[in-house]
Amino acid sequence: MKDYMYRLGANAKEAAKRGALLSADEKNGALAAMAAALRENSAAILAENAKDLADAEAKGVSAALLDRLRLTEERVDGMAAGLTELIALADPIGETIAQWKRPNGLEIARKRVPFGVIAIIYEARPNVTADAAGLALKTGNALILKGGSEAFRSNQAVAETLRAALKDRGLPEDLLQFVATKDREAVSILLKMREYVDVVIPRGGGGLIRFVVENASVPAIETGVGNCHIYMDKSGDIDMGVDILFNAKTQRPAVCNAAETLLVHEDIAADFLPRAAGKLAEKNVEIRGCERTRAILKDAVPAAEEDWETEFLDYILAVKVVSSLDEAMAHIARYSSGHSEAIITESYSAARRFTETVDAAAVYVNASTRFTDGNEFGFGAEIGISTQKLHARGPMGLNALTTEKYVIHGTGQIRK
Amino acid sequence: MKDYMYRLGANAKEAAKRGALLSADEKNGALAAMAAALRENSAAILAENAKDLADAEAKGVSAALLDRLRLTEERVDGMAAGLTELIALADPIGETIAQWKRPNGLEIARKRVPFGVIAIIYEARPNVTADAAGLALKTGNALILKGGSEAFRSNQAVAETLRAALKDRGLPEDLLQFVATKDREAVSILLKMREYVDVVIPRGGGGLIRFVVENASVPAIETGVGNCHIYMDKSGDIDMGVDILFNAKTQRPAVCNAAETLLVHEDIAADFLPRAAGKLAEKNVEIRGCERTRAILKDAVPAAEEDWETEFLDYILAVKVVSSLDEAMAHIARYSSGHSEAIITESYSAARRFTETVDAAAVYVNASTRFTDGNEFGFGAEIGISTQKLHARGPMGLNALTTEKYVIHGTGQIRK
Repeated sequence: MKDYMYRLGANAKEAAKRGALLSADEKNGALAAMAAALRENSAAILAENAKDLADAEAKGVSAALLDRLRLTEERVDGMAAGLTELIALADPIGETIAQWKRPNGLEIARKRVPFGVIAIIYEARPNVTADAAGLALKTGNALILKGGSEAFRSNQAVAETLRAALKDRGLPEDLLQFVATKDREAVSILLKMREYVDVVIPRGGGGLIRFVVENASVPAIETGVGNCHIYMDKSGDIDMGVDILFNAKTQRPAVCNAAETLLVHEDIAADFLPRAAGKLAEKNVEIRGCERTRAILKDAVPAAEEDWETEFLDYILAVKVVSSLDEAMAHIARYSSGHSEAIITESYSAARRFTETVDAAAVYVNASTRFTDGNEFGFGAEIGISTQKLHARGPMGLNALTTEKYVIHGTGQIRK
Repeated sequence: MKDYMYRLGANAKEAAKRGALLSADEKNGALAAMAAALRENSAAILAENAKDLADAEAKGVSAALLDRLRLTEERVDGMAAGLTELIALADPIGETIAQWKRPNGLEIARKRVPFGVIAIIYEARPNVTADAAGLALKTGNALILKGGSEAFRSNQAVAETLRAALKDRGLPEDLLQFVATKDREAVSILLKMREYVDVVIPRGGGGLIRFVVENASVPAIETGVGNCHIYMDKSGDIDMGVDILFNAKTQRPAVCNAAETLLVHEDIAADFLPRAAGKLAEKNVEIRGCERTRAILKDAVPAAEEDWETEFLDYILAVKVVSSLDEAMAHIARYSSGHSEAIITESYSAARRFTETVDAAAVYVNASTRFTDGNEFGFGAEIGISTQKLHARGPMGLNALTTEKYVIHGTGQIRK
């Protein structure tokens, strides 16, 4: 297993040398070829996916997981469209971020360059295979993909299709490599391959992310755990607050930027909570409230300590009445995962204090936390949402898959 | 030990909240007070340093280590001056890096903010205590310092002096905390304190850096291992090449940006090598050459495979004759630590290919590798030189100690 993984690593590092030098035209041509290959090969991909689905059904996995696993003509077409969309985006590689001249005449340029080799470890969705391959190629990186075992054959079929397209275009197919084993040891080895892997990005649930972060000696980017709060300030507009809360909680509750806890100022709680609860009842949202909440919403379930910590990813909302903006911010500081936090307020000072004080990737005034997303931010593509502070924070677009190097031109300068 | 370290972490996280909100005036006032306190307290600091020195001498440590450990009035004054110099630098915190408006009216701003809590693990030099404290304060971060055991009392005296100055200015003294134990378990605990520490930066030798990188679950920045090459191209100016090589090898051989290997094109080797060897002989540099080198320089020691991999940090130079630019770049790709690499050439194409192909933090044309340094790059301050690609690469100035957050102002937007 170690030999196999190290061979993948060495191949990736070799291919990355070529990847770094590809022109935007070469990369865009390959993206178009990859998209076409997916469409041409969709019958074969769907056939492999059917086998994965049959195995998963036999194992009795949940309907939600089956849905994530399922490919259709439409979904394969969606993967191809995702690759095509990358063509229109500007090539970040080679950008001169800054350039200056030193008093001794040295000309220093900071240039944007690929990482080299990126590893992505992901769970059930086969579309990540194509998405990640496109993003890595567009940024000139070699990519090692380790997908979930449920989607093994689907991922492999997609990856092999894309590799063949790279080869057809005269590019090294090892720019994209798929870890063709279900052996979990492969992940542990991958996470220590510092000679070959420049960064590892986990995409999946909290368990996967924790495993990667705790076991990787390769630099890792922590993504996507979101315990997001909406704070309804005493000065907030009630209609706006109800709409934002309803959107943040129910528009897509299983994602990381959905709201999990409502904090509401005591001065407005008696007006706001019944209105909010009435709206949330349309989606049968379960409310788990503090004592003061339950004095207003008699039907609310009592909230336990762990409810403040939990990313429900479901139609459940924890609710707490607070006495002040400070108490709200202290609650957020204690329980937030640093993803997305929102205040609903008409107060200039409260808005300012909240945005300056709250420590999270995205801090909102009068908008839904659901906007924390690469496409919603206008990045055109997204590889995930970073909840760490090193390198990238918040939605990661193409630039998050790049690093920089200094290029220095001299005329014989030596250091005194 | 765990309780103690976690208390430090919790205190740091609490202090960091205040640190993030400090104005530039407050931080600059504290820097001035810290500098004054060091000067006022220098007798006490030197007394503690004398005890460290006596212990080290009794243990029979090397003269070089004793020198790194030794403080003098002048060196204490140098630490104070370092703090004062930070005052003039622009405050990076609060900078709006970018701001744009989305079609739905959301206004998105990317703001520069402190990391929160930084941990720095370092070896013998007590001046790092003051340098790191100043950089962390200027960037609004809380800092946990773990110094080497040889400098324990010196570091503690400096840290306590600086803490007292913070307190005098009405700032939380826990913005600067010193790990007051020599127990090595403290480091292992620190490296796992993800709840409290946002980034750890090791400053020291290769052994320390490897230990941190391999054991940290806290995000880490790898610093300062440099196996740097000078490639003398066939078109290079021989005088310039000799000067740059001599500077890069001998101006300060014990530092990471010093050159360790010379690669020389076969067409120019017979002219260049004797000239270079003559100059290097002024400093008694030992030359370890490949066979082709030894055919020209009869006195050269035969190079072994490990010589290509070694960061000598001494008056030793490995020398290899190559047949082409490609062979030189392949050698660098194989053995480089990705720190600093230089080509001496008059060829436009060779310069361009070298800078585009070589994968290192700093790539030079016709200049010494010794310039890879925060002050030489014009950053005004340096916390170390990153040799990883995540977050920061090359000399790290104040911005390397910051992260960003998105602040989004809306008018009730919800996601469709």
